Amino acid sequence: MPGAGTDSTKPWHEGGPVVILVEPQLGENVGAAARAMGNFGLSRLRLVNPREGWPNPKAVTFASGADRILEQATVFPDVRSAVSDLKFIAATTARERGMAKPVMGADAMAAELAGRLAANEDVGLLFGRERTGLYTEEVSLADAILTLPVNPAFASLNLGTAVAIVGYEWYKLASGGALPFQPPERSPLADKADLFAFFDHVEQELESAEFFRSPEKQPSTTRNIRNIFHRVGLTRQDLATLHGMITALVEGREGRAARRAKREG
Amino acid sequence: MPGAGTDSTKPWHEGGPVVILVEPQLGENVGAAARAMGNFGLSRLRLVNPREGWPNPKAVTFASGADRILEQATVFPDVRSAVSDLKFIAATTARERGMAKPVMGADAMAAELAGRLAANEDVGLLFGRERTGLYTEEVSLADAILTLPVNPAFASLNLGTAVAIVGYEWYKLASGGALPFQPPERSPLADKADLFAFFDHVEQELESAEFFRSPEKQPSTTRNIRNIFHRVGLTRQDLATLHGMITALVEGREGRAARRAKREG
Repeated sequence: MPGAGTDSTKPWHEGGPVVILVEPQLGENVGAAARAMGNFGLSRLRLVNPREGWPNPKAVTFASGADRILEQATVFPDVRSAVSDLKFIAATTARERGMAKPVMGADAMAAELAGRLAANEDVGLLFGRERTGLYTEEVSLADAILTLPVNPAFASLNLGTAVAIVGYEWYKLASGGALPFQPPERSPLADKADLFAFFDHVEQELESAEFFRSPEKQPSTTRNIRNIFHRVGLTRQDLATLHGMITALVEGREGRAARRAKREG
Repeated sequence: MPGAGTDSTKPWHEGGPVVILVEPQLGENVGAAARAMGNFGLSRLRLVNPREGWPNPKAVTFASGADRILEQATVFPDVRSAVSDLKFIAATTARERGMAKPVMGADAMAAELAGRLAANEDVGLLFGRERTGLYTEEVSLADAILTLPVNPAFASLNLGTAVAIVGYEWYKLASGGALPFQPPERSPLADKADLFAFFDHVEQELESAEFFRSPEKQPSTTRNIRNIFHRVGLTRQDLATLHGMITALVEGREGRAARRAKREG
């Protein structure tokens, strides 16, 4: 999310599949990919023949603090050498290649990769060039194809975005879907005795304020008001707040009336 | 995925929740957000007080073809006016705000939003400033909080990336998880009679090539070879390819032997 920074007091999550960027054209995109990897606990970056050379200061700028991933990145001359120590590789592509390989989305792929890593089979993900993607020859070196559900009229993802979504599904699985925080612990719902005492308070004050226009409609209006407060699921603290609000409104009104009486008297 | 372009022959997917960028600092990020929206079938963009003004040519560059989303974007002076016609809004944040609101990940939020849209309750997602996110006052206007599982030591997502991941979960749900393509239809597995005929072919040729070192080991070696081919799950076409390969290897060898005999004779 925007607005969160680097927090050096927390452990940096590492590991996961190797991310292999094949002939990335722009350092900005390598940096954005490294940032996305850092967000989602991926730490192993390999670059095949980056067009602007390596290291690249523009990558550092766009990594926004994921420097360690760039510093540890390794460079290879071609895909074969970049994957030679791995046991399973997946090629990301938006286009059908007519190859008889398993095709998986990012969620199924995360599960496949996690299973293999748990069995000590090291795994990698190939991402292609910004404009032209992976060559079909490169896809033919992979065990499986990774693709995403996208708007068919506009399927071109930014390289950093593609890495981010694959990383997101990886981290969602690896972290058991745990979100970084939960709502603050709620105090328990109020007892009905306390809720009904609040109803009594409100209804008495409304009656003295001549809120109810006609005696015939009073029961149904009262039921509607009770239903509003029922829907909220009020806690004891909520009730204390609401009692205070009613009292303040009543006293304010009486205060104003008393002042007006004084002025006019 | 990188390497796919804009395809004007396919229908552009539209609709979904409104995306509201609150005081975005850089046109680049507005453009990247619009591109991600286009990738995942979101079309309604609202901007609250964009720092660099509007329209912004840098946004067009970074939208990479999602121009229609930028052209239809509307600008508001504050969050209240940007959400006034909506029924339900969620605020994205990486930081706990201590507010008693439901906290959801992008997958649960997609389901919540889809349900409300189906009930004709229009919905929106608030994304904060690149550096500082949403102010707590702005979060307090929302019905629910959206957050993502991220590396706690490096939780700062690029704005376009945050929009992309939320959009990805939206489109995954809206499209029923359908991937843009599947592996080509596989021809059915070969009949066992055809498979065993291939075993016969291989084993006869290996025997005439004197592949089996000892008669004692021949049965176990044969079983190992059969197991390799069993694991593949061969189709009739695969068998035709393999028969051809074996024949070519045998004839090549005989050809070489014949040539050598001729040279030496």
